[in-house]
Amino acid sequence: MAKYKRGKSSFLFSNQPVIASWASIAGKKESEGPLGRCFDKTTTDTFFGQKTWEQAEKKMQELALKTLAEKAGLHTWEIELVFSGDLLNQCIGSSFSLRNMNIPHLGLYGACSTMSESLLLAALTVDGGYADRVAALTSSHFASSERQYRFPLGYGGQRTPTAQWTVTGSGAALVTVEGKGPRILSGTVGTVRDLGIKDAGNMGAAMAPAALATIKAHMEDMNLTPKDYDMIVTGDLGQVGKELLLELAKREGLELGGKLADCGCMVFDNTVQDVHAGGSGCGCSAITLCSHLLGELSTGKLKKILFCGTGALLSPTSTQQGLPIPGVCHAVAIEGGRN
Amino acid sequence: MAKYKRGKSSFLFSNQPVIASWASIAGKKESEGPLGRCFDKTTTDTFFGQKTWEQAEKKMQELALKTLAEKAGLHTWEIELVFSGDLLNQCIGSSFSLRNMNIPHLGLYGACSTMSESLLLAALTVDGGYADRVAALTSSHFASSERQYRFPLGYGGQRTPTAQWTVTGSGAALVTVEGKGPRILSGTVGTVRDLGIKDAGNMGAAMAPAALATIKAHMEDMNLTPKDYDMIVTGDLGQVGKELLLELAKREGLELGGKLADCGCMVFDNTVQDVHAGGSGCGCSAITLCSHLLGELSTGKLKKILFCGTGALLSPTSTQQGLPIPGVCHAVAIEGGRN
Repeated sequence: MAKYKRGKSSFLFSNQPVIASWASIAGKKESEGPLGRCFDKTTTDTFFGQKTWEQAEKKMQELALKTLAEKAGLHTWEIELVFSGDLLNQCIGSSFSLRNMNIPHLGLYGACSTMSESLLLAALTVDGGYADRVAALTSSHFASSERQYRFPLGYGGQRTPTAQWTVTGSGAALVTVEGKGPRILSGTVGTVRDLGIKDAGNMGAAMAPAALATIKAHMEDMNLTPKDYDMIVTGDLGQVGKELLLELAKREGLELGGKLADCGCMVFDNTVQDVHAGGSGCGCSAITLCSHLLGELSTGKLKKILFCGTGALLSPTSTQQGLPIPGVCHAVAIEGGRN
Repeated sequence: MAKYKRGKSSFLFSNQPVIASWASIAGKKESEGPLGRCFDKTTTDTFFGQKTWEQAEKKMQELALKTLAEKAGLHTWEIELVFSGDLLNQCIGSSFSLRNMNIPHLGLYGACSTMSESLLLAALTVDGGYADRVAALTSSHFASSERQYRFPLGYGGQRTPTAQWTVTGSGAALVTVEGKGPRILSGTVGTVRDLGIKDAGNMGAAMAPAALATIKAHMEDMNLTPKDYDMIVTGDLGQVGKELLLELAKREGLELGGKLADCGCMVFDNTVQDVHAGGSGCGCSAITLCSHLLGELSTGKLKKILFCGTGALLSPTSTQQGLPIPGVCHAVAIEGGRN
C-alpha cells in the first residue's frame, strides 16, 4: 500500500512510529476533574510562578517538555525537533518556551487541533526517516484565552449554555523510530469547513462539520469503518458539538454511536464542575491524550483509537467583523503498544 | 548520506523535490519597487475588493493559490496539501482563504519565516513520498500589520529609522515529485534565539542572531561553505539586520560578504520609496522568492541559493509585557532547474 493515495488526504505510516513517552501538566480545575489523577504535574497556582498568564503558558510548555524528556530518559536537547503551537496571538506560549533551548522548532497554528496536527507531523517526520525523536507539544490557559477571545475575567461576563471552558494545561508526546509504546498507524489531514456558524460562544457547532468530514475521509481513504476502532475521540466538541456530530454522521450513514467520545466531555465532570458544554482549548485534547488515553493504550485497555483534534479557526477580529467560524479537524490513528 | 544526521537540524532531500510552479500577488507600493515587473498580479486597491484588510489578505492568498494552479496547469483541488500561515492573530488570512475549498490544510506559525517553513515541510512531505503536489503559501499586508502590531494607520505614528515596511503581498510555490523547475536539495530547521532585543521597531536586530545560527548549522550539517552558494538570501532582516548579520558572522569566522542578500532590501528601493530599513512581513520573502529568485533559478542566472526565511516571534502582548523578541530562521537550499 502506498504511503499516500492520489486524491486522498490520508498518510499511511508504514514504519509505525512509536509514542515512547508522554507528559501532561494541568491547572487546579483540571486536577479536580475525572482525569485529575492521570496528570504528571498539577498546581493550584494559576500563574505557574510567572508574572502573567501568557508566561504561565510558556512555563507549562517548558514543564511538559522537561517532564517528557525525563520520562523518556533523555536530556531535552536530545529531542531533535519540536512541532508546537498554541492559541495565543502569534503563538508566544510555544516560541517563548523554546527560547535559547537549542532545539529545532517548527511552529504550527491549528487552534485546538494542534495536538493532533503536531502528532501527525511528528509521525510523518519520523516515519519518513528524517528524525528519530520528535516532540509534539501544545498548551492553553483559561485566563489568557478568556481575555484574548472573549472578555477580561474581571468583567464577570455571563457565559452562554453552549460555551466551553478552556482547559489550563499542556500536553507533550515523544514520537520515536523504535521502542515500546503505542504506535501511530496513519493520519488524515483535515480541510477547512465553514457552515456559517457565527456564535463564538458555540464552538462545538462550528467544529462538528469539520470533524465529520475528517472522520469520513479517514474511513474512506483507509477502507475502514468506525467498528475498526475501540474509540473515535474528538478534541473539544463538548456536549453540544458531540451531539451535533452524532446527528450529522447519522444523516450521512456513518454510525458513530457507541464509539464516539470527546475530550471536552471527559476532562471535566459537568455535573459538579459547572463548565457548561465541556472543556476546550489546545490543552483539552492534549492533556487527555497525554495522560488517560495513551495510558489506556499502553496497558491494552484500549486497542486502537482515532484521535481527532478539532479546531475553531476564528479570531476576535474575524468575529467582530461579522464573519463565521471555520473549523478544521486532523485525525491520527493510534494502536496499543506491545509492552 | 542519511536523510538526517543525529544531533543535527538539517534534512537532506534525496529525491530532490521540484518547485514546478510559483505565483506572486502584490500591492501598489511593491509593484512600484525594483521587482514590480516580476509579480504575476498587482493591484492599486489596498482592499483587494474586500471590506477589510484582513479579508484582503485572505483574497491575496486565494489569488496566489489560484494563479499557482493555473501556471501549473492544474485545478486548485488537484493540489493535495497546503502548508500555510500568516501574521494575523490566529492566522485568519490562511484559514479563511481555504474555507470549503476541500484542500487538506496544515496551518503554520513561523512569523515572517513562514515561506521557508512551509517550503521546507512541503519538500519533506513530497520527498518522503507522502504526497505528489504540495503547496507552500503565505501572505502579509501593510495595513493589517501596522494596526495589529503597532498603531492604527490613522494615528499617523512616526516610524523609527530602524523600522521596516510590511510587504503587502502573497507568494505560493508548488512542490512536486517530478517535473521541470528548481529543485529543493535540503532544509535546515531553526532554533529560537533571543539575545534580549526589546525594540519592536528593530526586528532586524532581533532576527539576525537566529539567521546566523541557522546558516551556520546548515553549513556544518551539510559540510558546505558560503562559497558553495551563488546567494544566501535572508527573508526580511532589512538594512540594519543585514549589516548586523554580516558583523556577527565575521566574528564567528563565517565570511558571508559577497554572498549575502536580503529580500527586505531587494523588494523596495529605499532611495526613492522611503521604507526606512527595508521590507518585512511573511509576504516579503514570499513574493521575492516566488517571482524574481525562482525566475533566476529557472533561467540559470542563479545556480544555487540558500533561502533563509527569518521570523520575529513577538506579539503585541509580549512587547507590552516588557519581554524581548525571540527570532527564528529556517533555511532551504534550492538549485536551478534543468529546463
